[in-house]
Amino acid sequence: MKTSIATVSISGELPEKLEAIAKAGFDGVEIFENDFLAFDGRPSEVGRMARDLGLEITLFQPFRDFEGMPKPLRSRTFDRAERKFDIMQELGTDLVLVCSNVSSAALGGIDRAASDFHELGERAAKRGLRVGYEALAWGRFISDHRDAWEIVRRANHPNVGLILDSFHSLSRKIDVNSIRSIPPERIFIVQLADAPLIDMDLLYWSRHFRNMPGEGDLPVAAFAEAVAATGYDGYFSLEIFNDQFRGGSTRAIAADGHRSLIYLGDQVSRSTRATIGIDMPPRASAQGVGFVEFATDEDEAVELDGLLNALGFRKAAVHRSKKVNLYQQGEIRILVNVEPVGFAYAAYAVHGTFAYAMALAVDDAAAAYRRALALDAEPFRQPVADGELQIPAIRGVGGGLIYLIDHKSPLGQFSNIDFEAVDGEDAGDAGLKRIDHIAQTLAYDEMLTWLLFYTAIFETRKTPMVDIIDPGGVVRSQVVENDTGSLRITMNGAENRRTLAGHFIAEKFGSGIQHLAFSTDDIFATAKSLRERGFKALHISPNYYDDVEARFGLDPHLSEQLKAENILYDRDEHGEYFQLYSGTYGEGFFFEIVERRGYRGYGASNAIFRIAALKKQMRPEGVPKDAI
Amino acid sequence: MKTSIATVSISGELPEKLEAIAKAGFDGVEIFENDFLAFDGRPSEVGRMARDLGLEITLFQPFRDFEGMPKPLRSRTFDRAERKFDIMQELGTDLVLVCSNVSSAALGGIDRAASDFHELGERAAKRGLRVGYEALAWGRFISDHRDAWEIVRRANHPNVGLILDSFHSLSRKIDVNSIRSIPPERIFIVQLADAPLIDMDLLYWSRHFRNMPGEGDLPVAAFAEAVAATGYDGYFSLEIFNDQFRGGSTRAIAADGHRSLIYLGDQVSRSTRATIGIDMPPRASAQGVGFVEFATDEDEAVELDGLLNALGFRKAAVHRSKKVNLYQQGEIRILVNVEPVGFAYAAYAVHGTFAYAMALAVDDAAAAYRRALALDAEPFRQPVADGELQIPAIRGVGGGLIYLIDHKSPLGQFSNIDFEAVDGEDAGDAGLKRIDHIAQTLAYDEMLTWLLFYTAIFETRKTPMVDIIDPGGVVRSQVVENDTGSLRITMNGAENRRTLAGHFIAEKFGSGIQHLAFSTDDIFATAKSLRERGFKALHISPNYYDDVEARFGLDPHLSEQLKAENILYDRDEHGEYFQLYSGTYGEGFFFEIVERRGYRGYGASNAIFRIAALKKQMRPEGVPKDAI
Repeated sequence: MKTSIATVSISGELPEKLEAIAKAGFDGVEIFENDFLAFDGRPSEVGRMARDLGLEITLFQPFRDFEGMPKPLRSRTFDRAERKFDIMQELGTDLVLVCSNVSSAALGGIDRAASDFHELGERAAKRGLRVGYEALAWGRFISDHRDAWEIVRRANHPNVGLILDSFHSLSRKIDVNSIRSIPPERIFIVQLADAPLIDMDLLYWSRHFRNMPGEGDLPVAAFAEAVAATGYDGYFSLEIFNDQFRGGSTRAIAADGHRSLIYLGDQVSRSTRATIGIDMPPRASAQGVGFVEFATDEDEAVELDGLLNALGFRKAAVHRSKKVNLYQQGEIRILVNVEPVGFAYAAYAVHGTFAYAMALAVDDAAAAYRRALALDAEPFRQPVADGELQIPAIRGVGGGLIYLIDHKSPLGQFSNIDFEAVDGEDAGDAGLKRIDHIAQTLAYDEMLTWLLFYTAIFETRKTPMVDIIDPGGVVRSQVVENDTGSLRITMNGAENRRTLAGHFIAEKFGSGIQHLAFSTDDIFATAKSLRERGFKALHISPNYYDDVEARFGLDPHLSEQLKAENILYDRDEHGEYFQLYSGTYGEGFFFEIVERRGYRGYGASNAIFRIAALKKQMRPEGVPKDAI
Repeated sequence: MKTSIATVSISGELPEKLEAIAKAGFDGVEIFENDFLAFDGRPSEVGRMARDLGLEITLFQPFRDFEGMPKPLRSRTFDRAERKFDIMQELGTDLVLVCSNVSSAALGGIDRAASDFHELGERAAKRGLRVGYEALAWGRFISDHRDAWEIVRRANHPNVGLILDSFHSLSRKIDVNSIRSIPPERIFIVQLADAPLIDMDLLYWSRHFRNMPGEGDLPVAAFAEAVAATGYDGYFSLEIFNDQFRGGSTRAIAADGHRSLIYLGDQVSRSTRATIGIDMPPRASAQGVGFVEFATDEDEAVELDGLLNALGFRKAAVHRSKKVNLYQQGEIRILVNVEPVGFAYAAYAVHGTFAYAMALAVDDAAAAYRRALALDAEPFRQPVADGELQIPAIRGVGGGLIYLIDHKSPLGQFSNIDFEAVDGEDAGDAGLKRIDHIAQTLAYDEMLTWLLFYTAIFETRKTPMVDIIDPGGVVRSQVVENDTGSLRITMNGAENRRTLAGHFIAEKFGSGIQHLAFSTDDIFATAKSLRERGFKALHISPNYYDDVEARFGLDPHLSEQLKAENILYDRDEHGEYFQLYSGTYGEGFFFEIVERRGYRGYGASNAIFRIAALKKQMRPEGVPKDAI
């Protein structure tokens, strides 16, 4: 698959954009006209820069308001085109995008437009150039690729072809199967963009909200499959207008774009069995979270040990060569790393005590690792002692580690090789069974990056975005989960540091892991057991319980129990949900205990009450409220 | 006019919200239920806090999914209502908002709903409470205030009334005159919200984009006038859901809300001659910019003097008691203040050399000042020497000063009293006539504040928002202008510091004045004259001129002239526009010279090229690009 991206998709000045595009691994680049016009240098210089970076200039765009112009505008329009042809020849690209006319001066008529394109094709042919026609979703007369194709067909000129753009077709819900009958050589280039499903004016939506394939909600893969079915083997090129991307990191957005195309190519390869040069193992099926590892030092480890004991964990094993302890309860494994050298120590030195790594158990760790690398994930390796396991690992949110383990390296075996069991008094556990979910907090403008990362590598889907109301601002929450519920990661995007989430990432960040939710099969028994161990549950306002009783029509006895134990309650069409929180540890890390009685959500409607309680608990006397 | 605001409209925790609302000058507050539920204290405590701050609790809201429920849900719904009545009595408010049912379980039927409300009215009456019914724009059966009113009419109970909300009525384009026939005593409260005109899903629009009356594009004044025409004399209450406000400054957003209501009251008073207790002078008619004043020190003043000379200004007068020089050209007056004490010095000490003040010439400065203060503007006074003028002044963007002057204190007279003319060689001017516009840069989330400030105090309007594409991100631009063009202020809202605008406010800010645009009647003569004085025009990419020639079909001779002088060109349906820029001074301040041949805009489509050129010029060798 040949990959390309339009310069308009990323921030920066033209040379900076080209460098980032090359570095991200694209084969080609579309030069967006304004980027060229603002550049203080000849077209030939732009061409040279691109070629020096190994980039083909796939397209010069856009050329607007061309077809169907009445005289005398018509001849001026052709003159304009000739000027653009001059630039293209100097740039070193043979293809220009003509988008459908939106001018109020334009006249309609398929044959008129076809005849204009035939003439333009003649002129282009004289210079060895080609013209591609694209239907804008809001074009005055032509707003459907089927009509654009009919014009191209009637123009009947080898130098005139069709340009398809997934946004323009999918935003209008045009059947993508209409693409399958187009001869592949008549499709000059294919542009791709996704977008979140928000019902709004098409032009406004397109100009501000487009995003990378897989980052939005449009069926871009089905679109690309229809294109591939024609036999098309040209460039797939991203053309993304997005306010956030325009202000974001040039390199990071370019990297996301490349990942999105590779993932799309993988989807297309799989569903169409087309050979488009993308070959990697399938998405990794996650069995669960193998372990979560904290980086800390000897002193702070004492406090963490106390907290874990209060949660019913017991120290089960110690590492044979490193200062790492393994705590266990049910299927939950927590590693506490106080090794005074190495990556964990470096992470601790920067961020203080935090959960810097997690292990995801998958069907085939080696295959998952290969897939992750094919999708531009950053590998991580560190020295291990002789005979110890080198577990494949990649960098996740904030540079935190994600270890990949499988049945060939299950945690049991891994424990046996690297860890030695310890005997200690067993005070009995608190009924915690599994990690229900891991909650990661990150800057809002990194949400799309990591949602794409998880969904492209692991067999997961993302849930719709939910707004969490923090007294300091809105936090956007979205979940990556799989069908079985064995992998659930909630992602919270913070826009300012006055929110609890924003404070956490400003002060801590690291892996972004802000809380761990453990499951129990009996929330009340667990609450009692925790209480007896000295665990202090987060105090929830009594006002909450009066409302929850009335809202759900709860038995007053149940709501009294909930209130007594500070348990939050929610219900969906599948069942009930119970949530119990710890207070915060450090700059906002906390634990949650949940019981699901069929419920499938994450208690989003309770978040406002949990946040208010956490903020109240965190606020030291005398510290101004908006510092938290 | 009695003013109120819902707690949901601003950020913060409940006590913080109440304090900010009281401080902003509101008479009352609506308690949004979630703010109460998250608060860890009794309803009576909330009531006491509000009363201690002098706030009446005008409403408890919302109560959802009430009317038209089938059995057995119906009786549970009434039970829920009784629980809310308990809270209301303890809070100390007699009014609850019931919004139209959105539940899929609800049954339709006007009479069924009316009968439910009659029963609820009976129950409320027993406790001395009242129930207000509001039609949500997306209600399942009731989405129009006319239908809600019919239900209230048929409920036929003195404790059941109507609640009107401008957003719900105006978003559906319901004729506001339908309000005029409603008896005022049946309207229990009126909620107000504006919104920008963006065509999108009503619920999404309402939940994220509402803003204060006058900050958006809806005809909220016409709505309020229709309400006032009924004889309604109750609360006008703001209910604003806005993502930006939720993350913004609690106090600043509350203050904006209060200003918006006072301004709305003023509009209603004027158009309906209703006595609603708002009385202030009319909006001030601006004649032009009297002067712009720079704060600097003796050393930097030398550089500024050189720049002003190169622009054709001459030093015309010196202040009698302060170290302030007056430079003049045409009607343009620039003051340069190097006084080593006082406000200007303090501003200079913080921000360095910058334009910290401007004087707006109005019809009646004293009246404009009274109006500004009535609209919560912050007054500014500083000591003057005996016999000198105390010019009324208010604080504008970033705390910068806006002096108000008029024919009783014109700059001529002001100059004569406070200034002494100096004789110097007159090298002739460069043809600069007037200040065409002043450009202020500010953080994007302060845009609405200052647009409201200007349009409420001065007889101006705001233009639609335009996106300016900076290589570092999108800058939102909107203009405040009057009919004659004598006052034009362009406002640029920056979202990050990687843009030229964002860099300027991060490094400089102060008054936010980032550039001054002077007008000439002959741009080419002025360009030549400036060149001869040693003025260095900002170099524009030659690529721009090839495009502009083709795009507008310019005579090649003209485009050659433009290119030779680095003049940018634009055209609208009214005429032509020519723009010439200086390089940047310090952290991004610059001058612009424009010639308007009938043109009414501001050359927004040229901004991308101007910004690229300014950034290129600012970038010292070796400094990474994204530091600029």
